[in-house]
Amino acid sequence: MMDFKTLENQPIGTRIDLDLLLGQVRWNPDGLIPAIAQQQDTGEVLMLAWMNEQALRETLSTGQVCYWSRSRQTYWRKGESSGHRQRLVEARLDCDGDALLLLVNQQGPACHTYRPNCFYVQVNDTGGTIISQPE
Amino acid sequence: MMDFKTLENQPIGTRIDLDLLLGQVRWNPDGLIPAIAQQQDTGEVLMLAWMNEQALRETLSTGQVCYWSRSRQTYWRKGESSGHRQRLVEARLDCDGDALLLLVNQQGPACHTYRPNCFYVQVNDTGGTIISQPE
Repeated sequence: MMDFKTLENQPIGTRIDLDLLLGQVRWNPDGLIPAIAQQQDTGEVLMLAWMNEQALRETLSTGQVCYWSRSRQTYWRKGESSGHRQRLVEARLDCDGDALLLLVNQQGPACHTYRPNCFYVQVNDTGGTIISQPE
Repeated sequence: MMDFKTLENQPIGTRIDLDLLLGQVRWNPDGLIPAIAQQQDTGEVLMLAWMNEQALRETLSTGQVCYWSRSRQTYWRKGESSGHRQRLVEARLDCDGDALLLLVNQQGPACHTYRPNCFYVQVNDTGGTIISQPE
């Protein structure tokens, strides 16, 4: 059985079939997995959103990132209304199959606030500070 | 009320008190938030793990990253047994207060498999491929 525990010890280049792999992903009770979007050339972490299996399959087959919107309970084809699309360059699952890293090419700002990325509230042991503004 | 929606429109440098901020964080039903660890100088995304409020407060006050282990249901002071610690450089919350980005200095491999990061199963529309090996 090629589960994530078994994959740990496999050499570089080892392949696993997509259906088999997705059957081993540890979807949460809502059938979702967190997906980190990272701008592929600069390394900037843009956002974190969620995918179900169908959103991931669509993303892999179309190359256009599609999330599952938990607030709207529907597919969220990033940029469909805003034009701020994410083109998939590469997707990677983590060691225990419960997180995704998406290397993307982001068009325009990734954040709905029109900031380049969503992580603009710096936190330290005294509080938070806004560190970027809409562009 | 300084919630995340209100923060969206505040200028750079706007401050919010820690207790107030953490009271607005959208912890999941288990009291957790996903935290992305990114190596601060190279931009490498190392791993994704989870924090509860106490783990986040400890991380902010000690500068040493502490997660909540969902499998072991206890605090997970990264590197406590392995020595592969994460020193916090900066923490950032996202626009809707339900994800954390941790800029860190990682000592040794971040992954329990002794790979530099946890994202070593590349996925495309035909399947997965192992792309790194333990160091």
